[in-house]
Amino acid sequence: MSVEAIRSLAEGTLMKFGADETNAKAVADVVTMAERDGCVSHGLFRLPGYVATLKSGKVNGKAKPTVTKLAGAVVQVNGHNSFAPTALEAGRPALIEAAKTCGIAVMPLIGVHHFAALWTELEPICEAGLAAFACTSYKPSVIPAGGKKALFGTNPIAFGWPRPGKSPMIFDMATAVMARGEVGLAARDGHTLPEGVGVDADGNPTTDPNEILKGALMTFGGYKGSSLSMMVELLAGAMVGESFSFEAAARDNNDGGPPQGGEFLMAIDPTLVRGNDGWNDHAEGFFDKIYEQDGTRLPGDRRISNRAKHDKEGVEVSQIILDKISAL
Amino acid sequence: MSVEAIRSLAEGTLMKFGADETNAKAVADVVTMAERDGCVSHGLFRLPGYVATLKSGKVNGKAKPTVTKLAGAVVQVNGHNSFAPTALEAGRPALIEAAKTCGIAVMPLIGVHHFAALWTELEPICEAGLAAFACTSYKPSVIPAGGKKALFGTNPIAFGWPRPGKSPMIFDMATAVMARGEVGLAARDGHTLPEGVGVDADGNPTTDPNEILKGALMTFGGYKGSSLSMMVELLAGAMVGESFSFEAAARDNNDGGPPQGGEFLMAIDPTLVRGNDGWNDHAEGFFDKIYEQDGTRLPGDRRISNRAKHDKEGVEVSQIILDKISAL
Repeated sequence: MSVEAIRSLAEGTLMKFGADETNAKAVADVVTMAERDGCVSHGLFRLPGYVATLKSGKVNGKAKPTVTKLAGAVVQVNGHNSFAPTALEAGRPALIEAAKTCGIAVMPLIGVHHFAALWTELEPICEAGLAAFACTSYKPSVIPAGGKKALFGTNPIAFGWPRPGKSPMIFDMATAVMARGEVGLAARDGHTLPEGVGVDADGNPTTDPNEILKGALMTFGGYKGSSLSMMVELLAGAMVGESFSFEAAARDNNDGGPPQGGEFLMAIDPTLVRGNDGWNDHAEGFFDKIYEQDGTRLPGDRRISNRAKHDKEGVEVSQIILDKISAL
Repeated sequence: MSVEAIRSLAEGTLMKFGADETNAKAVADVVTMAERDGCVSHGLFRLPGYVATLKSGKVNGKAKPTVTKLAGAVVQVNGHNSFAPTALEAGRPALIEAAKTCGIAVMPLIGVHHFAALWTELEPICEAGLAAFACTSYKPSVIPAGGKKALFGTNPIAFGWPRPGKSPMIFDMATAVMARGEVGLAARDGHTLPEGVGVDADGNPTTDPNEILKGALMTFGGYKGSSLSMMVELLAGAMVGESFSFEAAARDNNDGGPPQGGEFLMAIDPTLVRGNDGWNDHAEGFFDKIYEQDGTRLPGDRRISNRAKHDKEGVEVSQIILDKISAL
């Protein structure tokens, strides 16, 4: 499928289930960006989940987010039960302006339903010459270090660095050690998993993927990853004034789509923080030092080369996913 | 030794080697905080390194940092070759004021020499009711994921959350998988190390601590930790306008003390980001959920209980360290 055909399919499907053009376009954009960059798990694969929340009424496909300047460097967006991409688009111009005025600015998102990859959100901010950071929580599937019961979401963290004239460098990683889907694949194929991936239903560490599916995941990097996951809960929860993962789960209707939650997003102007324009040459010299070593790459390099290929050749989309979308 | 005796010893020693009262007091404060909380590796143990930089002239013990407001939410401090704690103290009031006005503010530090634990720097900011984040680089000792040669420093990240009426929650962790000192202990005791800790001089992964000491460390959590370590280099280097780890090493005189480098520090006012005071009760409810699970604790809990004990009973200080300080 061409990139434009993917966008039309996503937008048309969402509008068929009651989303207005603004909401449908915002979600179709992030679905399309994901397919274009080869991030299949955040592409059309998510469309049935988005539709489920429209059908159940959990998400308001006609929501009109409100943008409120709470302080000079704080641009709050209340989605009023919108999909997160709609709220992000509503607030982005004000966030960029605040960061370019104050040097740094934060955009707390409340009343949104998050189901997209964070890098899709940072890219337009980085394209505006800003560094950016975002994190969000979800529903509990990950134990805190030393504990036995899921409390944290998979809690991704993303950071982007602008590279004028090039695609920005963006990493976007779950603080969970791996996705539940990967554990499912290991179970299907009869593989055991390394230690440190998960616990069984009683909270005891195990390498058996079937037991982990009944239990919970761990964070990456042991207690260090656990600290980061806790930071995500605090920033996307208490800091912005939205649900912690455990609160989101308690309120959710389990329709298969994302629960209501918050997001913490931040933009930084390196020209203002440094006091001059030297940051770009300086950073590029550092990236050169990474590339100098065989076997290294920058986060996102694979996505960016997928993008060039898919723009030219189109994207191969699984027939199973297309059938599921038709069946909606 | 009593906490006050530790402070006097540190302050007196630094002044004997040419530091003025402001510089000596700022460094003595962070040395004392570390000893008091049981972080021996950042306490009196570091004093010979601090003194070495005064003797070599790399650090100016009489430096007077300058504080410049580069934008509404950017408080730059140039240490003019001071120790980092002196620069931090000089800029902290303006950082706190900017964060309480704008909602978020950043303090880029340049021209400083960093040798302290980051949590000591965040604590007074959190005590003022703000969340805080800091990171700094050093000299290369850690490989980028997939590479073979040290490029990153141990690159710590710290995050703190205010808990009015209690000690703030602060985590402070190297993005290196472990300290070189710990590898040295394993070599001494004849232990092998787990996979994923380091590489030999040729950049090949090894579990032999003796080979890792000739080679380099890895980041914690594989490529995810490597992305975070890269983020630290960008924030404390190109963003603030100071050296990357590889540049700091190239310029350093190897006197045993810290090279000149930068630091990125940020403060966030949860009341302004959230738009109300509800963040404290909300966060405490989340912390309760962590404590509910046997085996968990919050980062810093051990430090805080050490503090109470040491305030009452004094601190046990190694005679070897005291002898080294006397020998200066």
